[in-house]
Amino acid sequence: MLLHLSTWQEVESYLQTSQGIIIPIGSTEQHGPTGLIGTDAICAEAIAKGVGAETQALVAPTINVGMALHHTAFPGTISLRPSTMILVIRDYITCLAKAGFSKFYFINGHGGNIATLKAAFSEIYAYLDDLQIPHANQVQCQTANWFMCSSVYKLAKELYGEHEGSHATPSEVALTQYVYPEAIKQGFLSPEVGKGHRIYGAADFRQHYPDGRMGSNPALATPEHGQQFYDLAVKELSQGYLEFITVA
Amino acid sequence: MLLHLSTWQEVESYLQTSQGIIIPIGSTEQHGPTGLIGTDAICAEAIAKGVGAETQALVAPTINVGMALHHTAFPGTISLRPSTMILVIRDYITCLAKAGFSKFYFINGHGGNIATLKAAFSEIYAYLDDLQIPHANQVQCQTANWFMCSSVYKLAKELYGEHEGSHATPSEVALTQYVYPEAIKQGFLSPEVGKGHRIYGAADFRQHYPDGRMGSNPALATPEHGQQFYDLAVKELSQGYLEFITVA
Amino acid sequence: MLLHLSTWQEVESYLQTSQGIIIPIGSTEQHGPTGLIGTDAICAEAIAKGVGAETQALVAPTINVGMALHHTAFPGTISLRPSTMILVIRDYITCLAKAGFSKFYFINGHGGNIATLKAAFSEIYAYLDDLQIPHANQVQCQTANWFMCSSVYKLAKELYGEHEGSHATPSEVALTQYVYPEAIKQGFLSPEVGKGHRIYGAADFRQHYPDGRMGSNPALATPEHGQQFYDLAVKELSQGYLEFITVA
Amino acid sequence: MLLHLSTWQEVESYLQTSQGIIIPIGSTEQHGPTGLIGTDAICAEAIAKGVGAETQALVAPTINVGMALHHTAFPGTISLRPSTMILVIRDYITCLAKAGFSKFYFINGHGGNIATLKAAFSEIYAYLDDLQIPHANQVQCQTANWFMCSSVYKLAKELYGEHEGSHATPSEVALTQYVYPEAIKQGFLSPEVGKGHRIYGAADFRQHYPDGRMGSNPALATPEHGQQFYDLAVKELSQGYLEFITVA
Amino acid sequence: MLLHLSTWQEVESYLQTSQGIIIPIGSTEQHGPTGLIGTDAICAEAIAKGVGAETQALVAPTINVGMALHHTAFPGTISLRPSTMILVIRDYITCLAKAGFSKFYFINGHGGNIATLKAAFSEIYAYLDDLQIPHANQVQCQTANWFMCSSVYKLAKELYGEHEGSHATPSEVALTQYVYPEAIKQGFLSPEVGKGHRIYGAADFRQHYPDGRMGSNPALATPEHGQQFYDLAVKELSQGYLEFITVA
Amino acid sequence: MLLHLSTWQEVESYLQTSQGIIIPIGSTEQHGPTGLIGTDAICAEAIAKGVGAETQALVAPTINVGMALHHTAFPGTISLRPSTMILVIRDYITCLAKAGFSKFYFINGHGGNIATLKAAFSEIYAYLDDLQIPHANQVQCQTANWFMCSSVYKLAKELYGEHEGSHATPSEVALTQYVYPEAIKQGFLSPEVGKGHRIYGAADFRQHYPDGRMGSNPALATPEHGQQFYDLAVKELSQGYLEFITVA
Repeated sequence: MLLHLSTWQEVESYLQTSQGIIIPIGSTEQHGPTGLIGTDAICAEAIAKGVGAETQALVAPTINVGMALHHTAFPGTISLRPSTMILVIRDYITCLAKAGFSKFYFINGHGGNIATLKAAFSEIYAYLDDLQIPHANQVQCQTANWFMCSSVYKLAKELYGEHEGSHATPSEVALTQYVYPEAIKQGFLSPEVGKGHRIYGAADFRQHYPDGRMGSNPALATPEHGQQFYDLAVKELSQGYLEFITVA
Repeated sequence: MLLHLSTWQEVESYLQTSQGIIIPIGSTEQHGPTGLIGTDAICAEAIAKGVGAETQALVAPTINVGMALHHTAFPGTISLRPSTMILVIRDYITCLAKAGFSKFYFINGHGGNIATLKAAFSEIYAYLDDLQIPHANQVQCQTANWFMCSSVYKLAKELYGEHEGSHATPSEVALTQYVYPEAIKQGFLSPEVGKGHRIYGAADFRQHYPDGRMGSNPALATPEHGQQFYDLAVKELSQGYLEFITVA
Repeated sequence: MLLHLSTWQEVESYLQTSQGIIIPIGSTEQHGPTGLIGTDAICAEAIAKGVGAETQALVAPTINVGMALHHTAFPGTISLRPSTMILVIRDYITCLAKAGFSKFYFINGHGGNIATLKAAFSEIYAYLDDLQIPHANQVQCQTANWFMCSSVYKLAKELYGEHEGSHATPSEVALTQYVYPEAIKQGFLSPEVGKGHRIYGAADFRQHYPDGRMGSNPALATPEHGQQFYDLAVKELSQGYLEFITVA
Repeated sequence: MLLHLSTWQEVESYLQTSQGIIIPIGSTEQHGPTGLIGTDAICAEAIAKGVGAETQALVAPTINVGMALHHTAFPGTISLRPSTMILVIRDYITCLAKAGFSKFYFINGHGGNIATLKAAFSEIYAYLDDLQIPHANQVQCQTANWFMCSSVYKLAKELYGEHEGSHATPSEVALTQYVYPEAIKQGFLSPEVGKGHRIYGAADFRQHYPDGRMGSNPALATPEHGQQFYDLAVKELSQGYLEFITVA
Repeated sequence: MLLHLSTWQEVESYLQTSQGIIIPIGSTEQHGPTGLIGTDAICAEAIAKGVGAETQALVAPTINVGMALHHTAFPGTISLRPSTMILVIRDYITCLAKAGFSKFYFINGHGGNIATLKAAFSEIYAYLDDLQIPHANQVQCQTANWFMCSSVYKLAKELYGEHEGSHATPSEVALTQYVYPEAIKQGFLSPEVGKGHRIYGAADFRQHYPDGRMGSNPALATPEHGQQFYDLAVKELSQGYLEFITVA
Repeated sequence: MLLHLSTWQEVESYLQTSQGIIIPIGSTEQHGPTGLIGTDAICAEAIAKGVGAETQALVAPTINVGMALHHTAFPGTISLRPSTMILVIRDYITCLAKAGFSKFYFINGHGGNIATLKAAFSEIYAYLDDLQIPHANQVQCQTANWFMCSSVYKLAKELYGEHEGSHATPSEVALTQYVYPEAIKQGFLSPEVGKGHRIYGAADFRQHYPDGRMGSNPALATPEHGQQFYDLAVKELSQGYLEFITVA
């Protein structure tokens, strides 16, 4: 059940049986010479819809832009500052918590979001505690990173070994190829690829990762792989969601 | 050209011939008993893609959640606070302006966003003036409200007269029916509908507009109407965009 | 009844019969070669006092500085950022709402304030909803722009036609001449005047409107006109205020 | 020279010979049963105009509302939060510093503003250092409290002894009587008056100072005293201003 | 009783008999050629521990970094902005007030903190008033500056006369010598020392006070003097604390 | 070399050979019935001093209070909100970066700080990029968690196995016993201990972890163990620091 294709009365009915909601969150950032700028949002959204279908959960509109400041030296990247993102997440959860939701399951497509999401959740629990919302203390948020699902990770290692890398990976590229076969890109991928550098500011990042990839060879990706990743992630995260909403 | 389906190198090429970008912005808010919660985002996104195709412009991912605080007494509504939204818009434009964009054309699907967008633009011009971005003083932002296109307005009056109303209107519902025919809703629409009250806080809004509509009869909407609105809006806003990027 | 000339005990008495208050808001910004920098504040304050006298309403001290960032390339202009102005309005209303006021009528002298005021009101309704103030949900704010009164607009058209323009207008200059006849300025007004350009940042504004006027010829203003505008605005806004405080 | 009664071209001329500006700042807060809510703003404004006339200095519009949170349990009081006031002062000074002003002389009518003004100045020096304003490092701000002028203090002691108290004092009430003789209030003043309690929150303040006075007997005030205070303050602060703008 | 060396159960017990807590606050800033950068924190912490021992009060960890922006042109200085410091103090007090503390006694080692602390307290009383904390209105904060104790001031005048100065004073240097005899510094102290200039921004400060001292001769300090200052301050502030927690 | 025991001239000299600085950061939070509230700050500070001595690095004063909102249902806990902590870290780094430091090594004693520190670093890189600080793009921040050193982790597993738990662990308690043998606490430790629950808000945390421990048995700690942990951590982090400042 997709929130943006529902009416408020359907949401009202939904709340009578569930207080859970899935919020896909991605990023709008460079993904190397052949990866889509929307990769992280596309993956998160596709998997979130799959999980929603599997579990009858309500799925919110995708947060397309996340915390990608270190990618901003590449044109096309858009990023929230962490302090802005904390406020955005606060506003989402405050609105939904006032309406009766209490279990927020963020299906995340971008490693760079994890820290800020965690910080945001801490901020929000304290914020809600100060308001007059009934049951504010029952609000629970969880981040579920599809790319860190054990089944996904295992398959990526099998298919790509060390060529999986850590950004613009063949696994995420494969998933976007499965979702948008019409947008499969050809492009030159140097056999030399930056790897092993820590992440600091945007200029530093581009210097060490000149084409945007981090140790990856996305040329190995295929749409068929993408479907496999999709199926594994949907299965594992569906289970994760059901456990999340069940535990007190 | 859709930003999320592009690579950063394609964006780099694009910037050599254009510094314009279209940013669709909608809202996630109740639209009466039969309107989709995503109506404003759906309309903005569809039209923005159409304008992008018509004008070769780059189209950013849709800002799905806008300023809809007055609708938050209806479940399913998600809103940013104006102060948050100003920061979000600031972050978007700062990233893109540093990359070289200077003409920001917001195709907007929600009346409630207009004031905050305008405030955000003022804030941003001053903010950019303080930074070390070259050509910061050339940044220009414009809001283009599809529902206020003269051709759209004229057709809505012809088709629906006073039943167009001002929220959950048949014209916007028609457009979503055209985009998502699989999500056309049936639902009871009382012949009595709130109208003429000013908008204050969320509780006050729901009291005066108990089913969420503002003077509208969305039962008049058809997908065919939706296509007409779509065509008119794309045509008028394509012209608007081209003028915007041309004028110094 | 002027707040700054009252005692707190007089305010306490006032609150027993009315919860309405008038807050004049202007701007401190260039008004062309012959217009006063305080024009918008002077007009708003004069009319607010007139309305207060007519309706027995309490009138707060004038907010002299508003949102005029686009005028800041002209010396003497002072502007709040929109995000600051939202906090200022929040602080005003929070104090007054805690004391028992619930109807806030902003008599506004500056077009550039309108969007930020609207954004501020939305922010404030949500903010108050989170506090422990009794009757927070009854707080209502309204902006009343004296220069958009239909009677004022009609007279301006009659007297000045297209020479009214949209900034440093003869109508507002006339009103300041009526209030401060000792400060009528003589100055060179080029027959060529900028007009028709959209408003972006401060440097861009000054480039297109080099002497600060927007399509206006303030040389047509007279103190007698000013009195006419004053009388019309006071009459129309007095009625507006009384309606505002009457409707639930 | 009053900023609000000047044109931007007059300000431009002024800046060729002086970079100093006087900013009156008061408060909108209860001043006991017979003191005006606008007392602090009235006094600051009147004296600032006097100093401006004496020294040819430009005088900005009065900041009517300051930091008076501890008075907010009395109706009619309006206060900025310190964090808001810091932003307001920052916005004022940023605008004026960009235009070329560098010496900001705040003539202050309210003890409660002093700490926040001082904090604001520190914040602003650091803020300006980060911007691209020429000569940002030459910006200097000073608070001049009229009621702490040695000549004023001495006269108050002579006239009222311990009945001067520290809030709603006869000296400030006298000054408002001189400025607004038509607004001299009669009211019951209990011979018992709160005194000697430290200032904490608003509820605590009202409990210890039930009628708003702090150890004062404003019944001793006369308009003639007011004129004496006015003359002394204008003289002393004129000298203070001239020294301020002279020293590097 | 030191908070950082206690368990939460010991704090729980403490709260049954006292709601007071001592919070030492210093600064990390240059103190001239021979003064320690930690001088203000060292003094505040040592005295706070002494007062805690004398009065059985709980002593929180020292806030090492305060408001020292005007010293930031000297390397090694770290400062919070006033707006940040207000939030820090707010967070401390909110946590502790929710746990049951209501009397906050800040033993302060730095004059530059005084204004921001005062502003913070005002902000916090209003903030707490908006939350759902029981007894929020009983929260009281007080700043106790050890260097302004009358006994300390008297001794400093006796020992050093005008050589006490106002920053990097022999009295504070002496106290650090008493606490850290192993860190007594030798260094060249020019007989010429800046004095009498007002404090503005960091660059301006360093220009007028080139070695960081303000009119002081810290070469006069001895550890024995330090012990005397310590004893006087502990005695006077112990009395101050006991009075503070006793008065309603 | 400890910053608080240095003079600004010593820091000036230091900067000629190194731009690195160590900043210890801990927390002030409950650590079960026998753990000290200052545990995380004590451990971070002790190890940071050891690393500083080993590597000749400058060590800043300890940030005693971190992000511990989930512990705030236990009295004595003090926490910054993540948004506040981001500002605090921003202020520290801005001051130090302006002075010439570029390598910031945070030795961290608290798992709850990790996410917010990471978010803060991202925020700061972008912030510095906007300022006029030379070499802003060379600023690099790193978090080094002593408890996650592989040598420490290995020893903890050897000594305590699963009784190490994840909060109020015997390893960190041991380290505080080594540093403060005079503050070793005796207290009842129930054999039943909460474990395996995710962390949400403060009330939820206390419900699942009623005495504050998370799966640990701190009764196993000894001061001798503490010394072993200390030695291992200092060795491993000294190496980490030297690598950090060496790599470009």
